[in-house]
Amino acid sequence: MPPPFRAEHDFLGEKLIPADAYWGVHTARAVENFPISGTRISAMPDLIRALAFVKKAAARANADLGALDSQRVGAIVLACDDLISGKLHEEFVVDVIQGGAGTSTNMNANEVIANLALEKLGFGKGRYDVLHPNDHVNASQSTNDVYPTAVRLALWSGIDRLLGSMAFLREGFAAKAEEFKDVLKIGRTQLQDAVPMTLGQEFSTYAVMIGEDEARLREARALIQEINLGATAIGTGINAPRGYADLACRYLAEDSGIPVVKSVNLIEATQDTGAFVQLSGVLKRVATKLSKTCNDLRLLSSGPQAGFGDIKLPPRQAGSSIMPGKVNPVIPEVMNQVAFEVIGNDMTVTMASEAGQLQLNAFEPIMGWSLFKSIEHLSQACLTLQTHCVAGIEANRELLARRVRESVTLVTALNPLIGYEKAALIAKTAIATGRPIDETAQALGILTREQMDELLVPDKLTEPMNPKA
Amino acid sequence: MPPPFRAEHDFLGEKLIPADAYWGVHTARAVENFPISGTRISAMPDLIRALAFVKKAAARANADLGALDSQRVGAIVLACDDLISGKLHEEFVVDVIQGGAGTSTNMNANEVIANLALEKLGFGKGRYDVLHPNDHVNASQSTNDVYPTAVRLALWSGIDRLLGSMAFLREGFAAKAEEFKDVLKIGRTQLQDAVPMTLGQEFSTYAVMIGEDEARLREARALIQEINLGATAIGTGINAPRGYADLACRYLAEDSGIPVVKSVNLIEATQDTGAFVQLSGVLKRVATKLSKTCNDLRLLSSGPQAGFGDIKLPPRQAGSSIMPGKVNPVIPEVMNQVAFEVIGNDMTVTMASEAGQLQLNAFEPIMGWSLFKSIEHLSQACLTLQTHCVAGIEANRELLARRVRESVTLVTALNPLIGYEKAALIAKTAIATGRPIDETAQALGILTREQMDELLVPDKLTEPMNPKA
Amino acid sequence: MPPPFRAEHDFLGEKLIPADAYWGVHTARAVENFPISGTRISAMPDLIRALAFVKKAAARANADLGALDSQRVGAIVLACDDLISGKLHEEFVVDVIQGGAGTSTNMNANEVIANLALEKLGFGKGRYDVLHPNDHVNASQSTNDVYPTAVRLALWSGIDRLLGSMAFLREGFAAKAEEFKDVLKIGRTQLQDAVPMTLGQEFSTYAVMIGEDEARLREARALIQEINLGATAIGTGINAPRGYADLACRYLAEDSGIPVVKSVNLIEATQDTGAFVQLSGVLKRVATKLSKTCNDLRLLSSGPQAGFGDIKLPPRQAGSSIMPGKVNPVIPEVMNQVAFEVIGNDMTVTMASEAGQLQLNAFEPIMGWSLFKSIEHLSQACLTLQTHCVAGIEANRELLARRVRESVTLVTALNPLIGYEKAALIAKTAIATGRPIDETAQALGILTREQMDELLVPDKLTEPMNPKA
Amino acid sequence: MPPPFRAEHDFLGEKLIPADAYWGVHTARAVENFPISGTRISAMPDLIRALAFVKKAAARANADLGALDSQRVGAIVLACDDLISGKLHEEFVVDVIQGGAGTSTNMNANEVIANLALEKLGFGKGRYDVLHPNDHVNASQSTNDVYPTAVRLALWSGIDRLLGSMAFLREGFAAKAEEFKDVLKIGRTQLQDAVPMTLGQEFSTYAVMIGEDEARLREARALIQEINLGATAIGTGINAPRGYADLACRYLAEDSGIPVVKSVNLIEATQDTGAFVQLSGVLKRVATKLSKTCNDLRLLSSGPQAGFGDIKLPPRQAGSSIMPGKVNPVIPEVMNQVAFEVIGNDMTVTMASEAGQLQLNAFEPIMGWSLFKSIEHLSQACLTLQTHCVAGIEANRELLARRVRESVTLVTALNPLIGYEKAALIAKTAIATGRPIDETAQALGILTREQMDELLVPDKLTEPMNPKA
Repeated sequence: MPPPFRAEHDFLGEKLIPADAYWGVHTARAVENFPISGTRISAMPDLIRALAFVKKAAARANADLGALDSQRVGAIVLACDDLISGKLHEEFVVDVIQGGAGTSTNMNANEVIANLALEKLGFGKGRYDVLHPNDHVNASQSTNDVYPTAVRLALWSGIDRLLGSMAFLREGFAAKAEEFKDVLKIGRTQLQDAVPMTLGQEFSTYAVMIGEDEARLREARALIQEINLGATAIGTGINAPRGYADLACRYLAEDSGIPVVKSVNLIEATQDTGAFVQLSGVLKRVATKLSKTCNDLRLLSSGPQAGFGDIKLPPRQAGSSIMPGKVNPVIPEVMNQVAFEVIGNDMTVTMASEAGQLQLNAFEPIMGWSLFKSIEHLSQACLTLQTHCVAGIEANRELLARRVRESVTLVTALNPLIGYEKAALIAKTAIATGRPIDETAQALGILTREQMDELLVPDKLTEPMNPKA
Repeated sequence: MPPPFRAEHDFLGEKLIPADAYWGVHTARAVENFPISGTRISAMPDLIRALAFVKKAAARANADLGALDSQRVGAIVLACDDLISGKLHEEFVVDVIQGGAGTSTNMNANEVIANLALEKLGFGKGRYDVLHPNDHVNASQSTNDVYPTAVRLALWSGIDRLLGSMAFLREGFAAKAEEFKDVLKIGRTQLQDAVPMTLGQEFSTYAVMIGEDEARLREARALIQEINLGATAIGTGINAPRGYADLACRYLAEDSGIPVVKSVNLIEATQDTGAFVQLSGVLKRVATKLSKTCNDLRLLSSGPQAGFGDIKLPPRQAGSSIMPGKVNPVIPEVMNQVAFEVIGNDMTVTMASEAGQLQLNAFEPIMGWSLFKSIEHLSQACLTLQTHCVAGIEANRELLARRVRESVTLVTALNPLIGYEKAALIAKTAIATGRPIDETAQALGILTREQMDELLVPDKLTEPMNPKA
Repeated sequence: MPPPFRAEHDFLGEKLIPADAYWGVHTARAVENFPISGTRISAMPDLIRALAFVKKAAARANADLGALDSQRVGAIVLACDDLISGKLHEEFVVDVIQGGAGTSTNMNANEVIANLALEKLGFGKGRYDVLHPNDHVNASQSTNDVYPTAVRLALWSGIDRLLGSMAFLREGFAAKAEEFKDVLKIGRTQLQDAVPMTLGQEFSTYAVMIGEDEARLREARALIQEINLGATAIGTGINAPRGYADLACRYLAEDSGIPVVKSVNLIEATQDTGAFVQLSGVLKRVATKLSKTCNDLRLLSSGPQAGFGDIKLPPRQAGSSIMPGKVNPVIPEVMNQVAFEVIGNDMTVTMASEAGQLQLNAFEPIMGWSLFKSIEHLSQACLTLQTHCVAGIEANRELLARRVRESVTLVTALNPLIGYEKAALIAKTAIATGRPIDETAQALGILTREQMDELLVPDKLTEPMNPKA
Repeated sequence: MPPPFRAEHDFLGEKLIPADAYWGVHTARAVENFPISGTRISAMPDLIRALAFVKKAAARANADLGALDSQRVGAIVLACDDLISGKLHEEFVVDVIQGGAGTSTNMNANEVIANLALEKLGFGKGRYDVLHPNDHVNASQSTNDVYPTAVRLALWSGIDRLLGSMAFLREGFAAKAEEFKDVLKIGRTQLQDAVPMTLGQEFSTYAVMIGEDEARLREARALIQEINLGATAIGTGINAPRGYADLACRYLAEDSGIPVVKSVNLIEATQDTGAFVQLSGVLKRVATKLSKTCNDLRLLSSGPQAGFGDIKLPPRQAGSSIMPGKVNPVIPEVMNQVAFEVIGNDMTVTMASEAGQLQLNAFEPIMGWSLFKSIEHLSQACLTLQTHCVAGIEANRELLARRVRESVTLVTALNPLIGYEKAALIAKTAIATGRPIDETAQALGILTREQMDELLVPDKLTEPMNPKA
């Protein structure tokens, strides 16, 4: 029976590591130090893959510059490829909330890759004399350039998925806008009846909003593409061979397919988390507008008898454990909650960013984790919103048509002819008496019924007027 | 003609001060250093008065302990009384947003009081050889105990006013609850029709919520009462005579009528801003609930034709520059905005508190200013909400009664008799067919019309059922 | 071989459920509808137990009032006891982020308990004709009273643990305060050298702060104790027998050992989330102050050569993958990050609370989840901070003593004798020349060396002065 | 003696207006309704000017399209030009915090312009039969397009000033980077000593960060340029003549010199506040990084004896009312506070944006006011930071040089030669013994003194290494 443990050591002393663990002493200490959330970094597969892409690019650059021999490089590259293909992610065991600016995540990667590479070379785990987590896997690197680079790569992938989900939802709204393009209704401002529009116009705004947000998100993604690989400890590039930064960035772009570019000023790039704050701000914007959209869907579908009732959302589950037949807008509600979470995450990112000091921001782990959640949850909520709600929305066409016919707000169209004050008199009287506005205008001697009929063609009221008229 | 300037100096050198200014060189430097918001601390009269109360109490304690002679103390006390009675507030000219942990505010007070006291003694302004802003007005004190104490005193007064405004609004809601106690209506959860209640029950919740918030605010006010006067620079009491802290606190309570108490640990009290965070958190809670209440008022009054229409808010101004006769819920809307501001202020307070370092928090000025705005704006918004909105609310009694009669949600009351699933079948069928539920229940063969009539007495549905029934 | 599925139905139609699942059709729909975070409510064992306590208390009250027969009640109670003892938590599969105001969580509980109770009665899963999730497990209940009640119960347990962790940390700081009570050092305000104090005084403030926060947290916990069980759908108690609310609350307190009390106004209590906002505000306060404390620990231990160096934190792991021997303050750093998360969670809770509408707040699931994370992470971070950091802190006694001897700030003690302006002259000259202050005072002819020696006894400077002196 | 009042009326009835007031009945009602902050919209002169630019452009477009006669247009244009030149701003008396989506601000402008235009035409105030605030000044307009357009114009001007202030500060940092380019120092990560860099490199990062933020701000400004003028009430353009929107936008750009462009979808543009959220998010980013920069300045200048002491900030005022000679970093501190305010304002903007409903966001007034404060305060704080702080910063050259010579962190440079573990051993031993690292390396038999001398040339350590070496 093989021994259940192997001994590893660092400058704090020796520690027993489970013999079959790919991680080592540094990871073990981190697991002890940070028993915070119970969620391990393996919950972010994009991050694990990103770390592997970075280590692979670094190894290739080191090979080119003579900083690592080809045998070790070959083994490291094979190990990274395994992680990229999804293997051994369960060996990434440090908590997502961790002190140390990502050092534990980086060391977890260094150790797993070292032991996997040793395996490829035919050596047992822990034979760091042959291939060392720091001296070889981490050669020419520091946590302070590897970790931010990997986080950015991982976020890039996440944003990509989110953009897809948003486009899917946008197309859903656009399809509804087309479907409802002839459904006339009364618009509302400040929750009070306003002038007419079409339900299609209303739904098209949701599509347009999402489209704009996609554009903003693509801009934020471009900022995320800028990396500091080659900066090493504080951006001066100490211990990296000259030329390494450019090479490593090029290989990273090549291998990952993500168009990363090297920052112009690596010292600034190493301490700066502005791109995370910007990205988080844009995600907050996305959340804010999707929440507003879902608030609207919930308002428009309120009822069925004592609410707005403009539209019907598809029923998805029993709404109540006590009120039979009640159907609630549960899908928009889940988006609202995701939005509130994203806005909270933005506050976390903001505080973490502000707390950076001098040459480094030690709080990138919580930024990464917060951004990861924001992106993933928004993406999932967009998919469920389109699939389980928007796609099945129906208009209450009859009710909407009746309300337009009866609406007092149509007097607005009379302004250019009779002036604001007389129009206000008609409106006020009509509301007080409950009589239609054409009848009221006639009774007040302001306009004849015929004039009114000519002026108040509701579907003419949804666009600018003919200046001749 | 008297010279337009007098020369004052500090350890940075000499500076010309307008001859008639009560403030001096330290204030002048602060005005140059902090040209940020253009709003001067005189915008917080409670703070000016509080500073005067503190300086007066300190002078009295110094007199008792032999740290200041009676002539100077007498003059200082007279000067403070002038400020307390509202005089010379315009001499408090430093910006509300200022660096330096309140030192500039404290020095502005020291200088104004010194020059006013010199006047009382028959000396000209700037004769600090006779009575010195630091050595005499500030004797046994430091900004680090004076400023937090004064801010707390000022907040206490503000909270007192806010409690009055909240009580005024609470009573307004309670009066409406009484007025509407027999108005039956359909409740709503998740914006979907739910079971019946009375409009009085609905309005009583607003009164109850405010009452609870008043209780929480009183608790937070009690935390604010705890002061660190006597702590001097860092809480050790250096340069204050033994016994001074107790005496000064006692005199301060006596003079101001505010029941301040001395902190148990003055070192902790000098650096701790937890009470501000707690107070701000409670103000946020108040804001959150008042905002929710105003959201409800806007929802309930939505329409007049295409909305909920449960109630009518009194019209207060023309709602639109283009739509004649439109009346908007402008008073609730202003409360919503105040609430958003208060929630933002809470974030400012939180960040400022977190940024404190070691023996002091240098960011109390922004905390004080943020809390001041939150308190004043909430107080004013409560007054206008009651006076200009709640007091004039009317119920749409007919509409509410009709909706109860027709509501499908009454089937809930059938659960105990026929079970959730059959009740759901009735509800679903009634909504689909648009037929009343009694007819539907009969058609489905579940219950007779007579049974339904007996069960569905709406005003029995607003309370627990008789277990015998 | 038994069939792999059983059919269940709700008013949307039929659905196949895995034959061995204790959950049913409502849960299945929720799982489809909310694929958001991938984290299931079983991640909150306190919540599962709390739901079981509530269902048990409801069953007992229903039994007493004749609303449920004793056989069904017996089976339900046995099922609840299983959940309370930790069994079958893995059957709670709906996402922690979910629409519907907790209905899916409540239905998940109703279904699991129903099927488990059926098992106890000897029936197969899905035999709802015998014992029904809604009609029996949920009898006299609504999600709108069950869910908030269960969330509060769960939070109560979590707060209890957090209070224990805070006390553990507080005692750690108090022990260090005792250990360092004679270590004299220079205090700092605004990061600039201030007057002397002891390191013990400095550490005692951390203990005092935590103690105060424990008091605030206990107050917030008392608000959480107030529950709305018996309110049913909107607080009117519809469908619950008269007397049920009081009985159910009493049984709940009895069974759970948590001193819950019934709200005075159940309608208000059903829609109000003020206690969550208050609790979150207090957790934010706790976070703010623990973050400030950890900022201080990081500042005080900065160095080892180019920083403050007042104290040494115990090394816990290699600080850098590139800089050998570097030790970083990773444990305080993780607390900072937890604090930032808690502050973000507070924003989420605030927004969710503000978004409540009319008779219900549909966003309690995200509030509960956010609060749960805040409490758990703070609790874990307190434990690791004490165990892995505070307990091992050492003072750099020599350095601190030397700095006190050489400090220019000691001139503060001369104020009462020579006045602020002369003292400032000595300080300014001493800093400019780099000479000691006693020598400088002598050279400037202000005080003799002997006078200085008498005045500047550093350990006299850490408390108020003898007024006789 | 002329009568002191004139009577005006609206649909709520008649109201007496001070005879010399340019504002009218709508403004008077708003002043009564919103007694919130005591700050009037005249506090935002950019907004008053912007409103005048909009009204002028609208009048010109109306003239072209025959919607207004040339005489009235001429008078309106003259009146607008007066406001643009700074006249009569004191007539803008409604509170900055107001309900009604900006209607009161728009009506205040309509009334002031109408009465001023009447004056130009030789008529008395209130002669609305000749020239009417709604029918003529507001022709083809609604608050819902005028107000957002004016707010955007005003913000554009503010951003322009802020960009200037940021550039001024950036150049200040760049000048210091040049001045300090040869000053070698020890970098710090996580407040612990790290590898060497130059003080010039450190200061250059501040310049680079600001430069990046300027770029982001310019992008956000471009979003603000997009306006919805011509949308009228809800974006459908009702009551505006066809062609008006394009003409009005063109004239507005022409007259104001601000390159505004018409939104593609006016319905979306009328309800969307995404650009405000984006702008606020970018201002938050700017604030976050300026706050971090000021935190650094405060850290680097901490001392003078017991701190980092890398640099000296110029003294600007006495730092303490009790500690003579104390100089505090008051200028960076005021920037920190502005940053906290800006971050709070962002929360306000976010909540206000999320609260928009259907065709309009009623909460733009608080968004506008919050953004205005953020922009102005940041701008002022940048100016004072450069003028009163950065320009006068000096390096403690001797101290920095000594620290580099003695620093243990130089062992990092040995990694490539002797490996991470041996380097860590040297570092650990050197710290424990207090001996220099070259001596330690020799004593441990790892490297000779000569080898060390060759490797550890500090100014070689601030850049990547020669791969040949």
